Amino acid sequence: MRARDLVAEYPVVALDTPVLDACRLMAEQDLPGLIVKGDDQHTILSGTEALRLAVPRYIMDDPALARVVDEAHADAFLDALGGRTVREALPKDRRELPVTDPDATVLELAALMARTRTPLVAIVEEGRLLGAVTLQALLDRMLGT
Amino acid sequence: MRARDLVAEYPVVALDTPVLDACRLMAEQDLPGLIVKGDDQHTILSGTEALRLAVPRYIMDDPALARVVDEAHADAFLDALGGRTVREALPKDRRELPVTDPDATVLELAALMARTRTPLVAIVEEGRLLGAVTLQALLDRMLGT
Repeated sequence: MRARDLVAEYPVVALDTPVLDACRLMAEQDLPGLIVKGDDQHTILSGTEALRLAVPRYIMDDPALARVVDEAHADAFLDALGGRTVREALPKDRRELPVTDPDATVLELAALMARTRTPLVAIVEEGRLLGAVTLQALLDRMLGT
Repeated sequence: MRARDLVAEYPVVALDTPVLDACRLMAEQDLPGLIVKGDDQHTILSGTEALRLAVPRYIMDDPALARVVDEAHADAFLDALGGRTVREALPKDRRELPVTDPDATVLELAALMARTRTPLVAIVEEGRLLGAVTLQALLDRMLGT
Protein backbone atom coordinates (compact mmCIF):
# COMPACT_ATOMS: atom_id res chain seq x y z
CA MET A 1 0.00 0.00 0.00
CA ARG A 2 1.25 3.42 -0.98
CA ALA A 3 0.25 7.03 -0.37
CA ARG A 4 -1.67 7.00 -3.69
CA ASP A 5 -4.05 4.39 -2.20
CA LEU A 6 -4.71 6.46 0.92
CA VAL A 7 -4.78 10.02 -0.41
CA ALA A 8 -8.06 11.94 -0.34
CA GLU A 9 -9.20 15.42 -1.26
CA TYR A 10 -8.47 17.86 1.52
CA PRO A 11 -9.16 21.59 2.10
CA VAL A 12 -6.45 23.95 0.85
CA VAL A 13 -5.82 27.55 1.90
CA ALA A 14 -3.49 30.20 0.50
CA LEU A 15 -0.63 31.98 2.25
CA ASP A 16 -2.75 35.14 2.26
CA THR A 17 -5.84 33.45 3.75
CA PRO A 18 -6.75 35.12 7.09
CA VAL A 19 -5.71 32.74 9.86
CA LEU A 20 -9.12 33.33 11.45
CA ASP A 21 -10.77 31.82 8.35
CA ALA A 22 -8.33 28.91 8.53
CA CYS A 23 -9.23 28.32 12.20
CA ARG A 24 -12.93 28.47 11.35
CA LEU A 25 -12.50 25.90 8.59
CA MET A 26 -10.64 23.57 10.97
CA ALA A 27 -13.28 24.02 13.68
CA GLU A 28 -16.27 23.56 11.37
CA GLN A 29 -14.93 20.48 9.61
CA ASP A 30 -13.08 19.08 12.64
CA LEU A 31 -9.73 19.01 10.84
CA PRO A 32 -6.33 18.59 12.51
CA GLY A 33 -4.77 21.05 10.05
CA LEU A 34 -4.93 22.41 6.51
CA ILE A 35 -2.92 22.15 3.32
CA VAL A 36 -1.31 25.49 2.42
CA LYS A 37 -0.56 26.34 -1.20
CA GLY A 38 2.74 28.19 -0.96
CA ASP A 39 4.61 30.31 -3.48
CA ASP A 40 6.55 27.40 -4.89
CA GLN A 41 5.53 24.40 -2.79
CA HIS A 42 2.76 23.05 -0.61
CA THR A 43 2.96 22.68 3.14
CA ILE A 44 0.75 21.98 6.15
CA LEU A 45 -0.57 24.34 8.82
CA SER A 46 -1.51 22.38 11.95
CA GLY A 47 -4.19 23.51 14.38
CA THR A 48 -1.69 24.09 17.18
CA GLU A 49 0.47 26.22 14.86
CA ALA A 50 -2.52 28.40 13.96
CA LEU A 51 -3.28 28.76 17.65
CA ARG A 52 0.15 30.19 18.35
CA LEU A 53 -0.79 33.46 16.59
CA ALA A 54 -3.71 33.92 18.98
CA VAL A 55 -1.41 34.01 21.98
CA PRO A 56 0.69 37.11 22.66
CA ARG A 57 4.43 36.35 22.73
CA TYR A 58 4.83 37.36 26.41
CA ILE A 59 2.15 34.87 27.44
CA MET A 60 3.63 32.09 25.33
CA ASP A 61 6.93 32.55 27.12
CA ASP A 62 5.51 32.88 30.63
CA PRO A 63 2.55 30.63 31.45
CA ALA A 64 2.01 32.39 34.79
CA LEU A 65 1.08 35.59 32.96
CA ALA A 66 -1.76 33.84 31.13
CA ARG A 67 -3.27 33.01 34.53
CA VAL A 68 -3.44 36.62 35.67
CA VAL A 69 -4.84 37.93 32.39
CA ASP A 70 -8.54 38.32 33.10
CA GLU A 71 -11.32 36.59 31.26
CA ALA A 72 -12.30 39.58 29.17
CA HIS A 73 -9.16 38.78 27.26
CA ALA A 74 -10.87 35.87 25.54
CA ASP A 75 -11.88 38.62 23.12
CA ALA A 76 -8.20 39.46 22.77
CA PHE A 77 -7.88 35.95 21.35
CA LEU A 78 -9.95 36.88 18.31
CA ASP A 79 -8.41 40.34 18.05
CA ALA A 80 -4.93 38.81 18.01
CA LEU A 81 -5.92 36.60 15.07
CA GLY A 82 -7.74 39.37 13.20
CA GLY A 83 -5.89 40.52 10.10
CA ARG A 84 -3.09 37.95 10.50
CA THR A 85 -2.50 35.52 7.66
CA VAL A 86 -1.64 31.85 7.28
CA ARG A 87 1.82 32.98 6.11
CA GLU A 88 2.48 34.48 9.56
CA ALA A 89 1.27 31.35 11.33
CA LEU A 90 3.60 28.94 9.53
CA PRO A 91 6.68 28.11 11.59
CA LYS A 92 9.83 29.64 10.13
CA ASP A 93 12.26 27.05 11.46
CA ARG A 94 10.67 23.89 10.15
CA ARG A 95 13.39 21.43 9.14
CA GLU A 96 11.15 18.96 7.35
CA LEU A 97 7.77 19.54 5.71
CA PRO A 98 4.97 16.98 6.09
CA VAL A 99 4.82 16.58 2.32
CA THR A 100 5.68 13.57 0.16
CA ASP A 101 4.82 11.90 -3.14
CA PRO A 102 2.24 9.23 -4.04
CA ASP A 103 4.82 6.42 -4.01
CA ALA A 104 5.51 6.88 -0.28
CA THR A 105 5.01 3.63 1.63
CA VAL A 106 2.84 3.31 4.73
CA LEU A 107 5.98 3.17 6.88
CA GLU A 108 7.28 6.31 5.21
CA LEU A 109 4.01 8.16 5.91
CA ALA A 110 4.02 7.00 9.53
CA ALA A 111 7.66 8.03 10.01
CA LEU A 112 6.99 11.44 8.43
CA MET A 113 3.98 12.10 10.68
CA ALA A 114 5.96 10.99 13.73
CA ARG A 115 9.06 13.06 12.89
CA THR A 116 7.13 16.23 12.01
CA ARG A 117 4.55 15.57 14.78
CA THR A 118 1.85 16.43 12.24
CA PRO A 119 -1.19 14.13 11.80
CA LEU A 120 -1.53 15.14 8.16
CA VAL A 121 0.73 14.75 5.13
CA ALA A 122 0.23 16.52 1.79
CA ILE A 123 0.73 14.30 -1.28
CA VAL A 124 2.25 16.09 -4.25
CA GLU A 125 3.14 14.60 -7.64
CA GLU A 126 5.51 16.67 -9.77
CA GLY A 127 4.25 19.90 -8.25
CA ARG A 128 0.57 18.93 -8.53
CA LEU A 129 -1.34 18.51 -5.26
CA LEU A 130 -3.26 15.22 -5.03
CA GLY A 131 -4.65 15.75 -1.52
CA ALA A 132 -3.66 14.55 1.93
CA VAL A 133 -3.26 11.41 4.00
CA THR A 134 -4.45 11.89 7.58
CA LEU A 135 -3.30 9.96 10.65
CA GLN A 136 -6.93 8.89 10.90
CA ALA A 137 -6.92 7.40 7.37
CA LEU A 138 -3.57 5.72 7.97
CA LEU A 139 -4.73 4.10 11.23
CA ASP A 140 -8.07 3.10 9.70
CA ARG A 141 -6.32 1.25 6.88
CA MET A 142 -3.63 -0.28 9.06
CA LEU A 143 -5.99 -1.43 11.80
CA GLY A 144 -9.05 -2.17 9.68
CA THR A 145 -11.22 0.07 11.87
CA MET B 1 -14.11 31.55 30.43
CA ARG B 2 -11.94 28.96 32.13
CA ALA B 3 -10.92 25.35 31.52
CA ARG B 4 -13.74 24.21 33.84
CA ASP B 5 -16.27 25.62 31.32
CA LEU B 6 -14.70 23.78 28.40
CA VAL B 7 -13.67 20.46 29.92
CA ALA B 8 -15.46 17.30 28.79
CA GLU B 9 -15.17 13.59 29.52
CA TYR B 10 -12.45 12.00 27.47
CA PRO B 11 -11.13 8.43 27.02
CA VAL B 12 -8.36 7.43 29.43
CA VAL B 13 -5.86 4.61 29.03
CA ALA B 14 -3.31 3.14 31.45
CA LEU B 15 0.47 2.98 31.09
CA ASP B 16 0.17 -0.77 30.57
CA THR B 17 -2.53 -0.50 27.86
CA PRO B 18 -1.24 -2.07 24.61
CA VAL B 19 -0.43 0.76 22.23
CA LEU B 20 -2.33 -1.15 19.52
CA ASP B 21 -5.51 -0.82 21.62
CA ALA B 22 -4.77 2.88 22.10
CA CYS B 23 -4.38 3.35 18.34
CA ARG B 24 -7.63 1.46 17.73
CA LEU B 25 -9.46 3.70 20.19
CA MET B 26 -8.09 6.83 18.49
CA ALA B 27 -9.01 5.51 15.03
CA GLU B 28 -12.51 4.36 15.97
CA GLN B 29 -13.47 7.52 17.84
CA ASP B 30 -11.45 9.87 15.62
CA LEU B 31 -9.43 11.28 18.52
CA PRO B 32 -6.22 13.33 18.22
CA GLY B 33 -4.79 11.59 21.31
CA LEU B 34 -5.67 9.98 24.63
CA ILE B 35 -5.36 10.82 28.32
CA VAL B 36 -2.91 8.49 30.07
CA LYS B 37 -3.29 7.72 33.77
CA GLY B 38 0.30 7.56 34.96
CA ASP B 39 1.81 6.27 38.20
CA ASP B 40 1.53 9.60 39.96
CA GLN B 41 0.17 12.00 37.36
CA HIS B 42 -1.85 12.17 34.18
CA THR B 43 -0.43 12.94 30.78
CA ILE B 44 -1.39 12.86 27.09
CA LEU B 45 -0.40 10.43 24.34
CA SER B 46 -0.85 12.04 20.94
CA GLY B 47 -1.60 10.09 17.79
CA THR B 48 1.74 10.94 16.22
CA GLU B 49 3.58 9.78 19.36
CA ALA B 50 1.77 6.43 19.27
CA LEU B 51 2.71 6.11 15.60
CA ARG B 52 6.38 6.42 16.42
CA LEU B 53 6.44 2.93 17.96
CA ALA B 54 5.17 1.43 14.71
CA VAL B 55 8.19 2.68 12.81
CA PRO B 56 11.55 0.92 13.27
CA ARG B 57 14.29 3.25 14.55
CA TYR B 58 16.45 2.89 11.41
CA ILE B 59 13.55 4.01 9.23
CA MET B 60 12.70 6.94 11.49
CA ASP B 61 16.28 8.17 11.12
CA ASP B 62 16.58 7.58 7.38
CA PRO B 63 13.49 8.34 5.29
CA ALA B 64 15.12 6.84 2.18
CA LEU B 65 15.07 3.39 3.82
CA ALA B 66 11.30 3.53 4.28
CA ARG B 67 10.99 3.89 0.51
CA VAL B 68 12.88 0.71 -0.30
CA VAL B 69 11.08 -1.39 2.32
CA ASP B 70 8.51 -3.31 0.30
CA GLU B 71 4.77 -3.21 0.79
CA ALA B 72 4.57 -6.51 2.66
CA HIS B 73 6.05 -4.55 5.50
CA ALA B 74 2.71 -2.89 6.15
CA ASP B 75 2.21 -6.02 8.26
CA ALA B 76 5.43 -5.16 10.05
CA PHE B 77 3.61 -2.00 11.16
CA LEU B 78 1.18 -4.02 13.25
CA ASP B 79 3.86 -6.46 14.39
CA ALA B 80 5.99 -3.56 15.63
CA LEU B 81 3.09 -2.29 17.72
CA GLY B 82 2.14 -5.74 19.01
CA GLY B 83 3.00 -6.22 22.66
CA ARG B 84 4.27 -2.64 23.13
CA THR B 85 2.57 -0.49 25.74
CA VAL B 86 1.50 3.12 26.06
CA ARG B 87 4.36 3.55 28.56
CA GLU B 88 6.88 2.84 25.78
CA ALA B 89 5.17 5.24 23.40
CA LEU B 90 5.30 8.26 25.72
CA PRO B 91 8.21 10.57 24.90
CA LYS B 92 10.91 10.46 27.59
CA ASP B 93 12.21 13.96 27.07
CA ARG B 94 9.01 15.97 27.38
CA ARG B 95 9.74 19.25 29.13
CA GLU B 96 6.15 20.30 29.67
CA LEU B 97 3.05 18.13 29.94
CA PRO B 98 -0.23 19.19 28.28
CA VAL B 99 -1.95 19.14 31.66
CA THR B 100 -3.43 22.01 33.68
CA ASP B 101 -6.10 22.80 36.26
CA PRO B 102 -9.73 23.95 35.84
CA ASP B 103 -8.87 27.60 36.53
CA ALA B 104 -6.69 27.84 33.41
CA THR B 105 -7.82 30.68 31.15
CA VAL B 106 -8.55 30.30 27.44
CA LEU B 107 -5.25 32.02 26.64
CA GLU B 108 -3.42 29.65 28.97
CA LEU B 109 -4.99 26.62 27.25
CA ALA B 110 -4.13 27.99 23.82
CA ALA B 111 -0.53 28.73 24.87
CA LEU B 112 -0.16 25.24 26.38
CA MET B 113 -1.45 23.55 23.22
CA ALA B 114 0.82 25.71 21.06
CA ARG B 115 3.94 25.13 23.22
CA THR B 116 3.45 21.38 23.58
CA ARG B 117 2.11 21.07 20.01
CA THR B 118 -0.65 18.86 21.38
CA PRO B 119 -4.31 19.51 20.41
CA LEU B 120 -5.52 18.12 23.72
CA VAL B 121 -5.02 19.22 27.35
CA ALA B 122 -5.90 17.09 30.41
CA ILE B 123 -7.64 19.01 33.21
CA VAL B 124 -6.72 17.82 36.70
CA GLU B 125 -7.95 19.25 40.01
CA GLU B 126 -5.93 18.25 43.06
CA GLY B 127 -4.95 14.93 41.51
CA ARG B 128 -8.46 14.15 40.25
CA LEU B 129 -8.96 13.97 36.49
CA LEU B 130 -11.89 16.07 35.24
CA GLY B 131 -11.45 15.30 31.52
CA ALA B 132 -9.88 17.13 28.61
CA VAL B 133 -10.17 20.29 26.55
CA THR B 134 -9.56 19.66 22.84
CA LEU B 135 -8.33 22.18 20.29
CA GLN B 136 -11.65 21.55 18.59
CA ALA B 137 -13.64 22.54 21.70
CA LEU B 138 -11.44 25.58 22.25
CA LEU B 139 -11.87 26.82 18.67
CA ASP B 140 -15.61 26.08 18.72
CA ARG B 141 -16.09 28.24 21.81
CA MET B 142 -13.75 31.00 20.68
CA LEU B 143 -15.14 31.23 17.16
CA GLY B 144 -18.75 30.31 17.88
CA THR B 145 -18.70 27.57 15.25
